[in-house]
Amino acid sequence: MTAYTATVTVRLKRGVLDPEAETTRRALERLGFELDGLRSMDRFEVDLEAADPAAAEERADEMAERLLANPTIHDYEVEVRER
Amino acid sequence: MTAYTATVTVRLKRGVLDPEAETTRRALERLGFELDGLRSMDRFEVDLEAADPAAAEERADEMAERLLANPTIHDYEVEVRER
Repeated sequence: MTAYTATVTVRLKRGVLDPEAETTRRALERLGFELDGLRSMDRFEVDLEAADPAAAEERADEMAERLLANPTIHDYEVEVRER
Repeated sequence: MTAYTATVTVRLKRGVLDPEAETTRRALERLGFELDGLRSMDRFEVDLEAADPAAAEERADEMAERLLANPTIHDYEVEVRER
């Protein structure tokens, strides 16, 4: 078994309203910053052990499907690296 | 002016308790997953225009310092790419 870190990035699907990002954007504008857009997302780093990178990625995918992301409103991506 | 996207990743400093991550970890374990650790972080993608990548990064740094991160408890990193 090898030790891996899987990074799962969870973001809202295009078209899903993101009031938190909108609030953050307005706050930045009130501070005087100019910006064209802002998106917020959640990121998880999961340390796990697996036989190979493909197995680690498969497990992280399953964690995303079952808990970390809500497939109705979220897209997610998984990256795996040895740790 | 060129259009850039600055990605700001905000994570808790080492040693700062993260009850949200701990809850997520336990929920994954209850679902039958084995993991060695889990960290959660916030990620912002900011679309902005700047003269060059260094200027874009400087602006995103300032947004992190002033609003996106709390320097007492957070570390952050900024990556800039053309969009």
